[in-house]
Amino acid sequence: MDYPAVIGWTADEAVWILDQTLLPDREEHRELDSVDAVAEAIRRLRVRGAPLIGVAAAMGMTLALRDCATRAEALVALEAADQQLRSARPTAVNLGWALDRIRRCLDRELGDVPSLRQVVRSQADQIREDEQANCEKIGVAGLPLLPEGAGVMTICNAGALATGGLGTATAPIYLAHSEGRRLEAIVPETRPLLQGARLTAWELMRAGISATLIPDGAIASRLAQGDVTCAIVGADRIAANGDVANKIGTLGLALAAWDAKVPLYVAAPRSTFDPHCPTGAEIPIELRDADEVRGFQNTTTAPSEVAVWNPAFDVTPARLITGYIMPEGLLERVE
Amino acid sequence: MDYPAVIGWTADEAVWILDQTLLPDREEHRELDSVDAVAEAIRRLRVRGAPLIGVAAAMGMTLALRDCATRAEALVALEAADQQLRSARPTAVNLGWALDRIRRCLDRELGDVPSLRQVVRSQADQIREDEQANCEKIGVAGLPLLPEGAGVMTICNAGALATGGLGTATAPIYLAHSEGRRLEAIVPETRPLLQGARLTAWELMRAGISATLIPDGAIASRLAQGDVTCAIVGADRIAANGDVANKIGTLGLALAAWDAKVPLYVAAPRSTFDPHCPTGAEIPIELRDADEVRGFQNTTTAPSEVAVWNPAFDVTPARLITGYIMPEGLLERVE
Repeated sequence: MDYPAVIGWTADEAVWILDQTLLPDREEHRELDSVDAVAEAIRRLRVRGAPLIGVAAAMGMTLALRDCATRAEALVALEAADQQLRSARPTAVNLGWALDRIRRCLDRELGDVPSLRQVVRSQADQIREDEQANCEKIGVAGLPLLPEGAGVMTICNAGALATGGLGTATAPIYLAHSEGRRLEAIVPETRPLLQGARLTAWELMRAGISATLIPDGAIASRLAQGDVTCAIVGADRIAANGDVANKIGTLGLALAAWDAKVPLYVAAPRSTFDPHCPTGAEIPIELRDADEVRGFQNTTTAPSEVAVWNPAFDVTPARLITGYIMPEGLLERVE
Repeated sequence: MDYPAVIGWTADEAVWILDQTLLPDREEHRELDSVDAVAEAIRRLRVRGAPLIGVAAAMGMTLALRDCATRAEALVALEAADQQLRSARPTAVNLGWALDRIRRCLDRELGDVPSLRQVVRSQADQIREDEQANCEKIGVAGLPLLPEGAGVMTICNAGALATGGLGTATAPIYLAHSEGRRLEAIVPETRPLLQGARLTAWELMRAGISATLIPDGAIASRLAQGDVTCAIVGADRIAANGDVANKIGTLGLALAAWDAKVPLYVAAPRSTFDPHCPTGAEIPIELRDADEVRGFQNTTTAPSEVAVWNPAFDVTPARLITGYIMPEGLLERVE
């Protein structure tokens, strides 16, 4: 399976990431050698996608220990790093989930700084491997949804670039393609940051998978054409009642899919489910900077002083979701 | 009422237009001194909006007569110009409607070249005045939909820039504002060509009307917030059964408005209704260039070789439309 490498350790134990803000024009790695740098990379979406920001935060925790001489110093630095990374973005629950996993391991480790570093690093590696394995399992669970000739719509990027593995929403697509099934991915560009155009189109084409880019406004019209057989999206947080927070535009896609009778599936690992969040109404929605909508890169697209509403996510009610593709299997909703 | 001038005659009887592709950065007039130039301006969206391209085509017909010495030459040139302008864009019915009006006047005019020119020019002026008057009447008909404190969503630009008057969808907004009512316009940016961001936000701010720009993907989410009391959109063609072709994204807006119980109105003059078109399925939908979606101006936003589907319009079924705001009054649909 040909998917891009997105994160790893450098030779001197810093973290490297594929800087996703530069794609598709440039494929550049960026070294992150401090907790500040990791938090900045998460906030600025250099590294993004619910599973991947959990991985990045966990790996970033090792950097808190860089200048610590004593266990006492280390515990203070780890606590500060946990707080800083946890608050880097509010919506994806995976961030807190990964940091909780690190925290639980630290609670059991009574050794000195090298031991603490070893524990954090090995747990971060475990989280990364778990997320990769989850992607594989999601792919297997979702494979029956994409028979020969399938047309599949996905929004934003819930791909390799969002997970470090096969992706969540894209995992069944990669697997179906690798089995030789002919299929077509329909990719909305996903303003304002164009993760569909810049990232999903790029990684699918890189893998030799046929993809068609559409403006976000064409989602409903394309679903009404009859050639999209299934929609699969990722998730940033799934509430206990099945409501899903995902990239802004998902709710519109869900309403259009419902009207066109196209089944809509949400692909996500267990870490995206938040049992403490009763419904979508309780999920915090990140509001991002106005300038993301007033332009793109160095191009201005609107009057500079216009007011902007720029939520990064929306909430799709469970009633619009056909099922959830989880590592544990395909869970179809029953009304 | 403070709205921009968008089209007129130059001193030497050519046509000038406000070049809308340069907004909001530059407010530049462009002289069109041939039928070719008018057709190019319509195709390239320098002049756009269903009513306004009808006006531009009608005015452009005078330019066919520039080098004609005899009546016989003139009739040939007028016929060629009619064909060229009529096919410049396929979806808006106003283009053919305006050219039909010119044609009917020519059929009654038996004089020489100066007489023919006079007939075309005065009919073009009449069409322009009629569209301006239609906008005023649409504004009056739609005014009760926008009480004090209203939140109104509109897509693309069905404004002064689309009509030469107060706009269609924007006419009630301009009138409500001029009556001192506090209101908020919610403006989706409308990719790929960003007429919401570049044009509607610009003209509303210019008039001192409060406007909030949102990404197209945020339409459904914003409608679900509860502060949008009404949606008003324009139309490029309305079929006999009430189905509406309008800017791509309108169908998604309509589905989201329906789900959120926000009433959706379509504002249009009689020239946008096409009695010869039984349903939306028979409306031809213009497919535009892939590069409009692969980038914006000189900025690339997607892999250069990715396939693109870029329909300029979609069709909203009549079942999703609360009513039609026409110069003749407000027509509410009855199920």
